[in-house]
Parts: sequence; C-alpha cells; structure tokens
Amino acid sequence: MINIVVDCYGGDRSPQANIEGAVKAINEDKELKLFLTGKEEEIKIELAKYEYNKEQIEIINATEVIDCNESPTEAIKKKTDSSMVKAYELLKNNSDIAGMVTLGSTGAMLAGAVLKIGRVKGVKRPALCPIIPTMNGGIVAVCDSGANVDCDPIWLEQFAVMSSLYMQFGYNIEKPRVALLNIGTEEEKGDALRKETYQLLKNNDSINFVGNMESRDFISGNYDIVVCDGFAGNVLLKSTEGTALELLKLLKKSMTKNFKSKMGALLLKKEVYGIKDMMDYNNYPGAILLGVNSLIVKSHGGGKASSVYHSIKLVAKLSKNDINGVIKDKFFQKVE
Amino acid sequence: MINIVVDCYGGDRSPQANIEGAVKAINEDKELKLFLTGKEEEIKIELAKYEYNKEQIEIINATEVIDCNESPTEAIKKKTDSSMVKAYELLKNNSDIAGMVTLGSTGAMLAGAVLKIGRVKGVKRPALCPIIPTMNGGIVAVCDSGANVDCDPIWLEQFAVMSSLYMQFGYNIEKPRVALLNIGTEEEKGDALRKETYQLLKNNDSINFVGNMESRDFISGNYDIVVCDGFAGNVLLKSTEGTALELLKLLKKSMTKNFKSKMGALLLKKEVYGIKDMMDYNNYPGAILLGVNSLIVKSHGGGKASSVYHSIKLVAKLSKNDINGVIKDKFFQKVE
Repeated sequence: MINIVVDCYGGDRSPQANIEGAVKAINEDKELKLFLTGKEEEIKIELAKYEYNKEQIEIINATEVIDCNESPTEAIKKKTDSSMVKAYELLKNNSDIAGMVTLGSTGAMLAGAVLKIGRVKGVKRPALCPIIPTMNGGIVAVCDSGANVDCDPIWLEQFAVMSSLYMQFGYNIEKPRVALLNIGTEEEKGDALRKETYQLLKNNDSINFVGNMESRDFISGNYDIVVCDGFAGNVLLKSTEGTALELLKLLKKSMTKNFKSKMGALLLKKEVYGIKDMMDYNNYPGAILLGVNSLIVKSHGGGKASSVYHSIKLVAKLSKNDINGVIKDKFFQKVE
Repeated sequence: MINIVVDCYGGDRSPQANIEGAVKAINEDKELKLFLTGKEEEIKIELAKYEYNKEQIEIINATEVIDCNESPTEAIKKKTDSSMVKAYELLKNNSDIAGMVTLGSTGAMLAGAVLKIGRVKGVKRPALCPIIPTMNGGIVAVCDSGANVDCDPIWLEQFAVMSSLYMQFGYNIEKPRVALLNIGTEEEKGDALRKETYQLLKNNDSINFVGNMESRDFISGNYDIVVCDGFAGNVLLKSTEGTALELLKLLKKSMTKNFKSKMGALLLKKEVYGIKDMMDYNNYPGAILLGVNSLIVKSHGGGKASSVYHSIKLVAKLSKNDINGVIKDKFFQKVE
C-alpha cells in the first residue's frame, strides 16, 4: 500500500477538483490509500457523488484554508487547523506516508516543507521543479522555478543533481540532458553566478551537462532539464506559459472572425485542440519540491481533477522507485 | 538633413538586407542621408540594383567584419577597418550624424558604444531596450534586455526613466505604464534587488509606475515598459519570442497534416498570416541603446530589409524629437 496525503483546499476549483482527481487515482490503483485533509462535511458531500472503495480514502478534518495572499510562514505557524498544515502534520508524524499533493499557496507549501519536514542531509536548499511540454512531444524540467530567488553556484549544482535523479526515476529518462539557463550559449557568457556554475556542472561526473541554453530554446526538445536560479526560472516558465496561452487565445479569436474563418476552424478543430491539449498543464503532474524528506508535489492553483490525478500518480511512482532514498544516498556520500 | 550611419555587415542577410532597407528609407524620405560602412565594391554592386538619389548615400569603405563569436572589446579595439568600428568612428568624429543602425554583434555594439561614444553624463549604465508586439496590437518595451547582467537598484530606476522618455518620444505614448518584472505582483515579492527597486520606482514622480508584473503578462498589452536586469530581461524576451516561434511552427505542421487540415488552412490563411506577421520582428525597429551620446539601434541578426528600414526610421524620428537632449537634461539636473 502507498499512502499519500491530498490537501483538498487552496486551489481555484477546490475541493471538487482535488476530490475528483483523488477518486480517479484510487479507482485505477488498488494499492493506493489517500488521506484527504479539509472540511470533512464538504468532502463527504463531494465524495458521495462517486463510486469507490471506501477503504482507500480517509478524511482528516481541517476547518481552515490558507490562501495565496497570506504571509506563508505566518500562515503555516498560525493556521494550525488548515488543510495544508494538517497535511504536513500527517506527513511529519507518519513515516509510512509517502508524500503529499497540494494545489494551495506555493509560499506556504515551501514554508511548511522547511518548518515541518526538513531538508535531506547535505542538501543546501530544496528546489521547485515543474515540467512542461516540448514541441516534439516530450517534456522539459526547470529547476529551480521559484523557491530560491538568490542562489549560490553550489546550490545550482545540487539542483542539477537532484533534478537529474528526478527525471530518471520519475520519467525513465536514462541520461537527462542538463542545460544551464544563460544569455548566450558560449562557456564564458553570463554573470558571475552563471560562470561559476558552468564550471561546477562541467566537472560533475554524475550529470549529463550539455552546456548553456538560451531561453528561446527552452521548449525545443533539445534539453531534459534547465538549471537556473528561482527568479530566472520563474520568469522563463511563466513567460513560456503566458505566451502560449495568449497566442492560443488570439488564434481562437481569429478563427471566429467571419464565416470563412469559422469554416476553416471547423476543419482544423482536431489539430488546434491537439496543440491546446499538449500545452495544457492539466495533462501533466505538478512541480515536485526536491531535497526535502518527503515527496511534495504542487499542482497549478487553477488545476483541474486531471492535474491532481497526475500528481498523485507521480508521488506513487517516485515512492515505488524510492527517489528520496537515492537522493539521500547521493548527498550523504558527498557530505562525508 | 538627418545623417545616419548604416553598418552594412554582421547580419545573416548582410549586406543585401542592410542596403535594400537603406534604399527604401531614402526613397521615402528626402531629408535623409545615409552613410553605409562596409566593403565598397560589394556595396556598389548591391546598390546598382536600385533606383535612388545618389546624393542621399555615401559609402565608407571598411574591409573587415566583426562576427558574433569574437570577444567584443578585443574586436572593437583591433578590427579598426571593420564596418562597425568605421561606423563608430564616423559617429564619434561627426557631431552632425544622428545615429547608427547595425545588425551585427550585440556585444561589439555595446563595447563600441562605451569605448567610442560614451555615456550621457549622469547615466550609470546604458541599457538595451527592444520592443515587442502585444496581443492587443500594441507594443511593449523591455529595459534592460541584456546589456547589464548584474544590476543595482538605481540603475533599474534610470532604465525606467530613460525608457519612459523613449516610449514617449519614439512612439507617442503619453504616460507609459512602467512595470517591474518580478515573480509575483505583491509589493514585497522578489529578491533584494526587486524590493529596493520597487521603492525607488514607487517614489519617482517622473514615471508612471504601475507595480510588479509577472512574466506571464508580458505581452498582455497591460504594460508599456517592463524594467528588469539584463539577465532576466534576456530570458523574458527570448522565451517569449521562442515560444511564439515554436507554436507557429507547430501550427504550420498541423495545417499540412492531411487533406482536411489543408483545406482548413486555406480558409484560415489570412488570419494565421496575420498572427505570424504581427509576431515578426522584421515589422518593427530594433533595440535602442539608451543612455549613450548618440542614437544606436541594433536590429535582429537575422533581420530582413524591412527591419533595417524600420530602425533607420526610428533613428530619424528620435533625432527629430531630440530624445537624447531630453535625456541629457533629465540626468544633468539630477547630477547637479
């Protein structure tokens, strides 16, 4: 049995999306047990809509919700009856619970991970690592995407090592190609952080470092992992998502302009939906927080049931492959 | 008469694109005189293809070309007979030449500006400021987009002031809306650089500061200027361009998939070309280097004739509006 906590509140479509995703996951995998944190009565009403094995779900009542506008650390410390803090307490006190899925505040998620769960020994800073689709039908990971705004070169080196293991154990990519986000591809490009990190990555035998990457090649499919500080990673990720979204909106608008374009749109419906589908974050798991003593996955705040479902499946897979055991071994050796 | 130097080498389509763009500009504006730097014989052969007023063009022979893989400072110092250095020498020695347009190495362009032309008194660092199209048919400027990878808050404040004047005098935007690129919209978000810069921008009466902007809203049309350090600006700009390009490629591929999609594509041709056209950098001027004692515009290395043409027109307009005089006054007051 794999035990996973699902924080049922904090997303735009919570708790409905969280619960629907959770039910889908257990109906597909009899080896899963899910602990749903949140308002018990509401969760019960929602669950009543579905057929599922009652033994695979347990509700942990929590009356409060942490929202995105709260101070993260304060919220984690004070809102002790919130769905997220309850989820963290469960993780902390039960070593047989593999991890947690949340759609809630990223800041609170990060604060909770540090305050309640703690870092893997030897890891300097945990890093947030989302994946996004590439143009050849694959995926690319960004590490870090916003957990650490100011970074040291050694942190970036650790991000590269952890995310390489993640892509290997989470997505079966044998030797993930690691690139350093920079403003040019040549070795000597960038600021002091980039120059120092480049040398560390180049000399690290445990990763497959392929050099600097310019942001224009992010979704080309030529890279499996992009290593960067959290500020640049956040800019990269959100501008890519934003541009794709804006262009698809524009395309939709163009397609309903007149009779002729509407006819064209009808004929192209399948193809355009295909692109839209490919770019939809609901078809992928959320971002994992690498380097902490549990498997914590953050789905998009606007995520639907499928996004929750994919995140639960990811935690289950990473738990089976014992990725945290592998990371611990790696960094424990380094520390010694 | 407005005198402008056109560096005719260094782009992927040089010198053809540079010369075609130059001829188009003078044929439209009898008040322009262009100085073309580069290999005289080649330029003459190219010019022979067009009808134009011979008095509006003068060729300055230069036998060398600076390419993108050279060390910028070294290239500017050693390649004294290159088209770019000759262009800079011309600018330096003739106060009646308004500015220069180049498609060549950005690094060499920056090094040349500092070594040959110099900063406006009071300006801490010159900044590169490109514009890109927004989804509502407007434009948005990014300042800095790569000239300064490590920045102080005061530099960013100056970028905001200079780019505001640029949008006003170059694009007739009365009170340009200035945003600070950040990883969240709340005032307290980001690293030390962002927090300090936020306060400086907030308290600067000469600009219209509207707060933090997340990169996902970059091309929304809600902002006229995005202020950032050169590293983040470069990531923002190139990921936006890259994503748009990749999506349009994917769309094109989908449209030729089968007979049905080809029919649809035929009906939607005008609309899709409209989007492609809108996103094409050849339909806009290049990036201006703000804060130096001349008007230096860098077009895309892959730019076509229209990109050169738009850049020449921009220099002419900024010269007529004496934007550098305005910037000088602004910073001279500040310095005193």
